[in-house]
Amino acid sequence: MRIALDAMGGDHGPEELIDGALLALRQDNLHVTLVGNQQVVQAHLDRQQLLPTELARLQVVHASEVVEMGESPVDAIRRKKDASVMVAFDLVRQGRVDAAVSAGNSGATMAAAVRKLGRMEHVARPGIATVFPTLQKPVVMMDVGANVDCRPQHLCQFAVMASAFSHIFNIDHPRIGLLSIGEEVGKGNLLVKETYDRLAASSLNFIGNVEGRDVFQGEVDVIVCDGFVGNICLKVSEGLASAAMQMLKGEIMKSPLAKLGYLLARPAFRAFAKRVDYAEYGGAPLLGVNGIAIICHGKSSAEAIKNAILEAAQMVKKQVISKIGAGLAANAQDEEVED
Amino acid sequence: MRIALDAMGGDHGPEELIDGALLALRQDNLHVTLVGNQQVVQAHLDRQQLLPTELARLQVVHASEVVEMGESPVDAIRRKKDASVMVAFDLVRQGRVDAAVSAGNSGATMAAAVRKLGRMEHVARPGIATVFPTLQKPVVMMDVGANVDCRPQHLCQFAVMASAFSHIFNIDHPRIGLLSIGEEVGKGNLLVKETYDRLAASSLNFIGNVEGRDVFQGEVDVIVCDGFVGNICLKVSEGLASAAMQMLKGEIMKSPLAKLGYLLARPAFRAFAKRVDYAEYGGAPLLGVNGIAIICHGKSSAEAIKNAILEAAQMVKKQVISKIGAGLAANAQDEEVED
Repeated sequence: MRIALDAMGGDHGPEELIDGALLALRQDNLHVTLVGNQQVVQAHLDRQQLLPTELARLQVVHASEVVEMGESPVDAIRRKKDASVMVAFDLVRQGRVDAAVSAGNSGATMAAAVRKLGRMEHVARPGIATVFPTLQKPVVMMDVGANVDCRPQHLCQFAVMASAFSHIFNIDHPRIGLLSIGEEVGKGNLLVKETYDRLAASSLNFIGNVEGRDVFQGEVDVIVCDGFVGNICLKVSEGLASAAMQMLKGEIMKSPLAKLGYLLARPAFRAFAKRVDYAEYGGAPLLGVNGIAIICHGKSSAEAIKNAILEAAQMVKKQVISKIGAGLAANAQDEEVED
Repeated sequence: MRIALDAMGGDHGPEELIDGALLALRQDNLHVTLVGNQQVVQAHLDRQQLLPTELARLQVVHASEVVEMGESPVDAIRRKKDASVMVAFDLVRQGRVDAAVSAGNSGATMAAAVRKLGRMEHVARPGIATVFPTLQKPVVMMDVGANVDCRPQHLCQFAVMASAFSHIFNIDHPRIGLLSIGEEVGKGNLLVKETYDRLAASSLNFIGNVEGRDVFQGEVDVIVCDGFVGNICLKVSEGLASAAMQMLKGEIMKSPLAKLGYLLARPAFRAFAKRVDYAEYGGAPLLGVNGIAIICHGKSSAEAIKNAILEAAQMVKKQVISKIGAGLAANAQDEEVED
């Protein structure tokens, strides 16, 4: 199995990204193709002490251009045909790698993936899934930002695609919830009410509406929403987690005894932070294109990149793309029968 | 000043609510009218050791009926004319009290307030505001659940009403943000894009789009959104705060040293919990009706009820209703000039 990494995107520069790839190589028996400026990539690799067994699983593919973080995605991928992110997805398209990961300009990553891989059959709109930590197994939420104004059919397709993705957590018959503001039928906005009826009529394992407070309880495996609501959920969660840690530390620093207590409890804090750290869960897959595409935070650490590569490898092993295809075909049949 | 409390609503029974009223009486020089079953209320009061100065500021008004938590709000207020929540808002309407607070069936509280007090002039739809703790001053978000499908004019009115309400935190020229999924103009769904243009053209202190992660930073005083998105933000925040504390405690309980550390740091944890506890911020005001109405969580503790009563008192002192009226009139003029 071979995963391509866009070695040029991201806020911390190529070194951090390449270090992430090396961490992944050491943890799993996979091959990584680093895509970017050959000289820059090779120079960093030359500074590492790599074992022959590691070198044998590393490959560098040159790309002469880079999409910058601030660039317009559509313009960038039109003008920069040889951008690292474009070359990476071209490798996926050609079957030379099994998946591609990028921490560069998210819009450009999405646009490049759609352009190079194309939409899957039966998919009206590809979307971005993300993983939230919960008190039990992780939960997959989709869409978290690709589609801000959705129709019911889009949400139903998100349900199918996110369910297939949740197989990477060994969830066999994922419970699907529709994000709303009350559990009862009939609660929610117009989009949710119409989507509810469609999901209830489908052969999917739909458990009904779930509320914002259910996201972290782990009683549901897949949560479906439009990209506007999903993105706000994601950002509110990130913002609250970070603000709460700052507030708690502020309180602890006020008292020497509390500081001592914090030192004693620090391993527990670290374990907790690891558990709620989004980076631990890798990147966010773009689902609905003909191939595996993982979008990472620009600020991803080497650890986060490692996890995104391992996540991509899991998606390959669990045959997520063909599961999505089968799910969409079955769902499309459902809809025809219904009409 | 006199505040009415619906003494029958809430999950913990009349005793908890009445205890909250007594806490408020002791903290502020205000009068409280307890509305509910005279016998039940009086029996609980008789068991307390009340000072004559406290008794002098307490009044009981009998109501023969109660709206239960599971009842349909519309049916309930139609059938139960003498329900405690209806009688409480009747007191506001008659000018016999300055505000009413209820922890009963939220839908019925809202319906009773609209029925008894009526919508304010220029208000298309009353909405519910809530207060989030931040790293700096609290932030007011509106709407958090009354209106799930909104038009731009509704969001602009929420901006005006929530700004007037934010005066209770001594914020003179509140910064208004529009909740979206990117800070740049043009980011967001159709509703947000249209609302952006209206707010930018108004005389309000509109600072542009804010993202989910900005909610807890305190760089904005008022956040405007539709009731579907706002309710999900609120519930996701509550859910995450509670799940995170459970996860952290779970990690701490794994190690005796961490447990000792936690004991030493406990006062800091308590101070933190107090800071992020929604109950600390009282209830959620229903804005846009001709009078002060505060909706509390069914599970409100006596402490939460006390804070809701003190919040109502602040709204009276800061003349929030007349500020809302003035703001709406000015905004309506803006719109006429624009047309």
